[in-house]
Amino acid sequence: MTAAPVFDKGLANTIAAETKCSFIDGGKGVLEYVGYDIDSLARNSTFEETVFLLWNQRLPNKAELAALEAEIRAEYDLPEAMWQMIRETPRNAHPMHMLRTLVSALGMFDREADADGADANRRKSIKLLAKTPTIVANFDRHRKGKPLVRPDASMNMSTNFLNMLNGARPTDAVAKALDVCLVLHADHGLNASTFAARVTISTLSDMYSAITTAIGTLKGPLHGGANEEVMHMLNEIGTMENVEPYIKGRLARKDRIMGFGHRVYKAYDPRAGYLKTFAKQIATDTGNLGLYEMSTKIEEIMKAEVAAKGIYPNVDFYSATTYHSIGIDLDIFTCMFAISRISGWTAHCMEQLAANRLIRPMAEYTGPHGLQYVALASR
Amino acid sequence: MTAAPVFDKGLANTIAAETKCSFIDGGKGVLEYVGYDIDSLARNSTFEETVFLLWNQRLPNKAELAALEAEIRAEYDLPEAMWQMIRETPRNAHPMHMLRTLVSALGMFDREADADGADANRRKSIKLLAKTPTIVANFDRHRKGKPLVRPDASMNMSTNFLNMLNGARPTDAVAKALDVCLVLHADHGLNASTFAARVTISTLSDMYSAITTAIGTLKGPLHGGANEEVMHMLNEIGTMENVEPYIKGRLARKDRIMGFGHRVYKAYDPRAGYLKTFAKQIATDTGNLGLYEMSTKIEEIMKAEVAAKGIYPNVDFYSATTYHSIGIDLDIFTCMFAISRISGWTAHCMEQLAANRLIRPMAEYTGPHGLQYVALASR
Repeated sequence: MTAAPVFDKGLANTIAAETKCSFIDGGKGVLEYVGYDIDSLARNSTFEETVFLLWNQRLPNKAELAALEAEIRAEYDLPEAMWQMIRETPRNAHPMHMLRTLVSALGMFDREADADGADANRRKSIKLLAKTPTIVANFDRHRKGKPLVRPDASMNMSTNFLNMLNGARPTDAVAKALDVCLVLHADHGLNASTFAARVTISTLSDMYSAITTAIGTLKGPLHGGANEEVMHMLNEIGTMENVEPYIKGRLARKDRIMGFGHRVYKAYDPRAGYLKTFAKQIATDTGNLGLYEMSTKIEEIMKAEVAAKGIYPNVDFYSATTYHSIGIDLDIFTCMFAISRISGWTAHCMEQLAANRLIRPMAEYTGPHGLQYVALASR
Repeated sequence: MTAAPVFDKGLANTIAAETKCSFIDGGKGVLEYVGYDIDSLARNSTFEETVFLLWNQRLPNKAELAALEAEIRAEYDLPEAMWQMIRETPRNAHPMHMLRTLVSALGMFDREADADGADANRRKSIKLLAKTPTIVANFDRHRKGKPLVRPDASMNMSTNFLNMLNGARPTDAVAKALDVCLVLHADHGLNASTFAARVTISTLSDMYSAITTAIGTLKGPLHGGANEEVMHMLNEIGTMENVEPYIKGRLARKDRIMGFGHRVYKAYDPRAGYLKTFAKQIATDTGNLGLYEMSTKIEEIMKAEVAAKGIYPNVDFYSATTYHSIGIDLDIFTCMFAISRISGWTAHCMEQLAANRLIRPMAEYTGPHGLQYVALASR
């Protein structure tokens, strides 16, 4: 006999899937990818290695990592028609509308787009992971009227992205800063974009559809837009002198402080710790120490005022200053999130397909019944 | 105190949202849109009126219907850059990859794409509803090397679509056949694509993102691909003589018969009844009676063999022959589904936003914990 349906609007109390990708204990401030705590991965691993971990549920040996890196680099470039598509994209397009559209377009150019099976899906995952940074960096160049820059397969993902974005190879420290951000954002349980991707792929649709879904879902201000809002706030504050009156004013009006608190974490966001020390170094190196110092002052005030309520800085708070320091425009912060999270989205999709069940909840109908259709002339 | 989380993989026993759009009683074979049974709407209403019903939870009066029709017709045309985009789309692209990409692209050209509020979302819904048929019809012309055909605002949606698709105004009977199909597919509870659209919009992302998500989700063979598979089956059977051995052979091997049975309906699919009588007329008019007769013979055999198990023809079974009769290529059947369902998707998104809560379930983590990171050199 079937149990009575459970009503759970928002699904906050419903477990919709099993996963081996990541584990979150919000109360204790723990995030693990496949059993490895996020802090040790941020300090020791690389983004490419993290991708291997999420896709294979174990760390690679040297040969395996080198093989994956080579496969990714071989897919950095875009079909020629996609380069043309970038050139014809409206320069004023919101970057997330652009990204959703151009990642979707990749599906039109992949002969394997609808091929089934684990191998085909892994190849599609590599293509999505490898080509998305090329799209983001070159759209940014296109909209600024700069010549497009082809990817360079001699570089790792972070270095190659910044090399395309800026038309110059980044310092190792700057590339490392981006790499750390990519590791930190790679996966985070069944967040809304990951869940939406699993719903899409559960109809046995394809990886391009699922990742397009995820990008459109990440775009929402309740999800991926948070680090952009942190940067808006820092710009609005403007000076060290204004930090205290601004923050205390917002707190007095019970306005939200961007970059603090998280639906899941009631302790310090485990992704924020290493990033904070790292953000300081990179801000110093790039002449953005003032911004970093504003951030730490905000954190101090928040600690004194609201830390007792479990409101701590989250990963967005220090990734905003880091991205700004390494020269990434505010309005592509969410694209950076997508570049990283594609690793987790694809991992979840492959996991969903390995033991698929269509994700199709019920609705509670609250409208009328049995109405009689009246001809238009009589209405 | 919070109740213990409920594990429900697939969410088949979870109510994830409230809706006033449509009501389904699968056991009794009932489908109502906002209280009106689907059969009376198919017989008496039009697609545009059904759109009004789903968006406003009531039928329009004459002036209201005329106003909505005028608003829709004013949005049939595409931005010039989108016409160019159609011309540059690869001719061999899978139509659903194309549709997902070009509908997403609409978001880059709408200055209001990220505007909040009920009025802006209604305007975006009109644009999505009005422009999608233009994209589908003209992509089909483009891939066949035919000149593109601009929409004609003097025609209703069905007539205008077929006029673009074929470069000639359809007979009233053929346009009506399409209109009935559009009414029948407009909404169907919290199916996977509608649910996915609600997940996307629940992050406060935008209508373009949500409808793009829905298209990518509808694309899956477990969801929107069914009427395409019916047509493949009819082509495979080929002749009346082959119907009985083919169907009985599949039943003996316990293979699925496409177009029969439905996850929800255990009685006759309420959308199939009127469509069946209608399909006969249109097949006769268009010289496709043989196909229709094959279909009814399949239904007879299925009735004798498996009706006792609650396996009846579903809406896909007769929409396949109808679409084929009116000259729509098999591989754009799912695009036709999307053209109709955009009405329901947008209705659900507006409903979600009116009382939004982020849709973010939990995952059950089944992997390891507390692993120690070992340096790559030591692996």
